[in-house]
Amino acid sequence: MSRKLIWLAAAAAVLGSATAEAQVTKSPPVDAEQVLRVPSVNYRTEWVQLGTFSVLAEKPQDGAKELHAVYTERKNVEAYLNDGKFPDGAVFVKDLWNAKTEALPTGTASFAGDLIGRFVMVKDAAGKLGSGARFGDGWGWAFFLGNETVKTVTGDYKVDCLSCHEPVRKQDLQFLQGYPILRK
Amino acid sequence: MSRKLIWLAAAAAVLGSATAEAQVTKSPPVDAEQVLRVPSVNYRTEWVQLGTFSVLAEKPQDGAKELHAVYTERKNVEAYLNDGKFPDGAVFVKDLWNAKTEALPTGTASFAGDLIGRFVMVKDAAGKLGSGARFGDGWGWAFFLGNETVKTVTGDYKVDCLSCHEPVRKQDLQFLQGYPILRK
Repeated sequence: MSRKLIWLAAAAAVLGSATAEAQVTKSPPVDAEQVLRVPSVNYRTEWVQLGTFSVLAEKPQDGAKELHAVYTERKNVEAYLNDGKFPDGAVFVKDLWNAKTEALPTGTASFAGDLIGRFVMVKDAAGKLGSGARFGDGWGWAFFLGNETVKTVTGDYKVDCLSCHEPVRKQDLQFLQGYPILRK
Repeated sequence: MSRKLIWLAAAAAVLGSATAEAQVTKSPPVDAEQVLRVPSVNYRTEWVQLGTFSVLAEKPQDGAKELHAVYTERKNVEAYLNDGKFPDGAVFVKDLWNAKTEALPTGTASFAGDLIGRFVMVKDAAGKLGSGARFGDGWGWAFFLGNETVKTVTGDYKVDCLSCHEPVRKQDLQFLQGYPILRK
């Protein structure tokens, strides 16, 4: 197999029944721009969790197949509550977890299992933080498989990212409806 | 109607198709002990989110019916990673959100809608933080409907809380499997 085919096979094995978002695996990994890399800070304890999205399994009775948890810095939350928008340079990390599910007294409950990968978005309204195929529509965009923090599998954000975000274009391409702490 | 019946009718209206956990609504509200009240700090931005549980709808194809998000102070996470247990006085808040669900390119995605209420647990291994029917098994326990922070509907934790937590008795009655940041 070519190096690219080997890599694709490995990615498919990691991702299993991939979500639509995982079409990002079409591009072989390359070094992401510094501003788009997964932050070195422990964002899960140092930043604010904006919200978690539960994605239903192919067989709904199995519960969730994935949980997607979104983080940003506290100062960005404060800026949004004051200004109604996020400042340039605001970084968002979305953890994609494969869900595990148990039958509990509360019901069929799903929770975070293994990490599939992480999406990073950085606000760039002025278009000054980067150029090229991972920047546009007011944002920088990159996806990183597993615990990878530098090498992104996002090639062109218009191909790899935008299709999933189009439903929320009027909300600056963010799924704000899932972030209760931003409500007033 | 008696005052108690009126209250029960109101609680049922708020809770809708109640989860097993909502059996806590059997008791009319009373002032909770200070240590068990919903913290006045903005725990959603100031504390750490340990994890979110997605609870499947009665009709699975509808997605999640609730999302349960658990928070504690950062110092408690650090203590757990060092000692393998939480210190006495560690407070845990679990937000219960009614889920909203949308068909998105990623799949059937559920996220936090309205707040049903909040569970508070405080670690009390030494049994020094409180006495009475809301304390026992190494913890204090209370549930608060909606945005209420003082008046709890938890009477006897053995009746109102323990049945849901029995499956994790060996984990000090906590659903640790859903908290990835506590894994080593």
